[in-house]
Amino acid sequence: MKEYIHGGDIYRHPDVLDYSANINPLGTPPGVIRAAKDSMERVCHYPDACQEKLKQALAEYEQVPVEWLICGNGAAELIFALVQAVKPKRALVLAPTFAEYAQALEAVGCEVNREILKKEDGFTLQDRILDRLQKEDLQMVFLCNPNNPTGILMDPKLLRKIVTLCEKRQIYLVVDECFLDFVPEPEVHTLKGELKGKKYLFLLKAFTKRYAMAGLRLGYGITSGETLMTQIEAQLQPWNVSTPAQEAGTAALRETAYVEKARTLIFQERQFLREGLMKMGYPVLDSQANYLFFEGEPDLYEKLLQEGVMIRDCSNYPGLWKGCYRIAVKLHTENEQLLEKIRKVRR
Amino acid sequence: MKEYIHGGDIYRHPDVLDYSANINPLGTPPGVIRAAKDSMERVCHYPDACQEKLKQALAEYEQVPVEWLICGNGAAELIFALVQAVKPKRALVLAPTFAEYAQALEAVGCEVNREILKKEDGFTLQDRILDRLQKEDLQMVFLCNPNNPTGILMDPKLLRKIVTLCEKRQIYLVVDECFLDFVPEPEVHTLKGELKGKKYLFLLKAFTKRYAMAGLRLGYGITSGETLMTQIEAQLQPWNVSTPAQEAGTAALRETAYVEKARTLIFQERQFLREGLMKMGYPVLDSQANYLFFEGEPDLYEKLLQEGVMIRDCSNYPGLWKGCYRIAVKLHTENEQLLEKIRKVRR
Repeated sequence: MKEYIHGGDIYRHPDVLDYSANINPLGTPPGVIRAAKDSMERVCHYPDACQEKLKQALAEYEQVPVEWLICGNGAAELIFALVQAVKPKRALVLAPTFAEYAQALEAVGCEVNREILKKEDGFTLQDRILDRLQKEDLQMVFLCNPNNPTGILMDPKLLRKIVTLCEKRQIYLVVDECFLDFVPEPEVHTLKGELKGKKYLFLLKAFTKRYAMAGLRLGYGITSGETLMTQIEAQLQPWNVSTPAQEAGTAALRETAYVEKARTLIFQERQFLREGLMKMGYPVLDSQANYLFFEGEPDLYEKLLQEGVMIRDCSNYPGLWKGCYRIAVKLHTENEQLLEKIRKVRR
Repeated sequence: MKEYIHGGDIYRHPDVLDYSANINPLGTPPGVIRAAKDSMERVCHYPDACQEKLKQALAEYEQVPVEWLICGNGAAELIFALVQAVKPKRALVLAPTFAEYAQALEAVGCEVNREILKKEDGFTLQDRILDRLQKEDLQMVFLCNPNNPTGILMDPKLLRKIVTLCEKRQIYLVVDECFLDFVPEPEVHTLKGELKGKKYLFLLKAFTKRYAMAGLRLGYGITSGETLMTQIEAQLQPWNVSTPAQEAGTAALRETAYVEKARTLIFQERQFLREGLMKMGYPVLDSQANYLFFEGEPDLYEKLLQEGVMIRDCSNYPGLWKGCYRIAVKLHTENEQLLEKIRKVRR
């Protein structure tokens, strides 16, 4: 069994309060659950291999041509398919960042170079990456905006320079925007406007976090690169997105009020939770996502777990160390409860 | 969009009677639908990456160690992951057979050699394959037993010789037993008893057909080869099997009476349908699976579609030609209806 290195393992910790997975705190919208349940009456049939209804709805939602879209069994499947399609020899990945980029790259024998985000820079991406893209022999770069686990956004100007440089140097640039929905001004940060005419730019998005439907598995990618699209599709089975995921996804895109409500809640609660932690003396990064990153006592994870609370111990992220933690922003009472538990274990 | 080359595309033909996909005619068991629906209340969480409950139930069902099992988003996902893990340079695939083996092989740039199953041999696998395995520089072989689309079983003695030879020559042997559940004596044909100590043998099975749950996506593989298992796992994301698929699968394994009922029905109805077709003068192969293969008029597919009936036109299978068809064995009234429609279009 491959070692499980992520948050959210409620199956081995069934009775904990889980702050380790970054899911929309409002829970799955009832309309989404209903659509998935209704589809169960039709699961004797194969799912639609063309994902026609879902893709049409998604094209409208994202305001992109339907040909630019590819859906996956979660965004994670698309990371693996992308890498298997491109088969890079050498790639650049941030540290710290989401673990699956490097796992997928290593699975095709790719050398993974790291761009270390430094604590003294507040874990922000610096201009020096442009030098590396210019000089190193890279075929692929993974960025995550806002980054996971820090919640730090990239400078939009720097990001656009990276896009231009990667396109020029024929380096596939994958930008994971899975958490951009929870940022105050996503339109300033998304690279969707840059996609047209770019052969090497690929954006990654997910239903998982936006609609709290991680268990159903549905993510998507957007690119205008026809060759890249064809290559990725060749790595995937025709029925990679299940019937309930297709139906739930189509229904989810209508949940605009739910998403707005979640955003307002997260803006408030991120502030509340951050201030609560800082009052206790923890240095907390100025995350723009639905999670917070901070440094604390080396045994905080274990102590909280004894109290029935699970946070994300980030010490297994390359570029981080023991004492780095990530917590999800949840409902107000849940956030209060977390602060209370932390206060308790520090006594 | 990758061209869709399979049966069962009810999404582009919403009002047809579909005989083109080989699904258990009894429909999804209510207990399976209930388990999947109940799980929807928990889909805000990620699926269990260890698939613990499902794998325990499956180990008991198959009577194999849990370490020998790997689950996939349908058996089709495992075909791609297997090939991406082994990265063969040259592989042997039957003709005709299920299309995804060659698609997955071609996606990693593998040369696909074909073992042509001849009409004059009744599309049976012949001893000459042993010669090819001995002489050709192969890294992988795909067999399908009973074969799709013919329903023809392989000689158990020949199959065991192939296992021994592949193990000796270090050729990965994948045997797809997805349709073995509908064969009169599966225990005579399964290679499960051969797995122990074999590093190169991999068996493929699916919930799709046995429990009519194609839309939920759940398949599995069995191997005792530890290295192979680790390599396949490295190609897969941690959350490849959705929560509803895991729950539905666990519930499905308890449906023993349902499976027995389906088998009895299929044995009867396969006979009924075959005799009906033969009375009309069609040469019908002696399929042992839940589908029948026959040759007919070149325009039979189109004529039936005009009557609202969809069968599988097999002319796009390598090794077949226009006029080859596959039909699923369904409920008695449905099979009568199909025979009636065929009689009508022949008038």
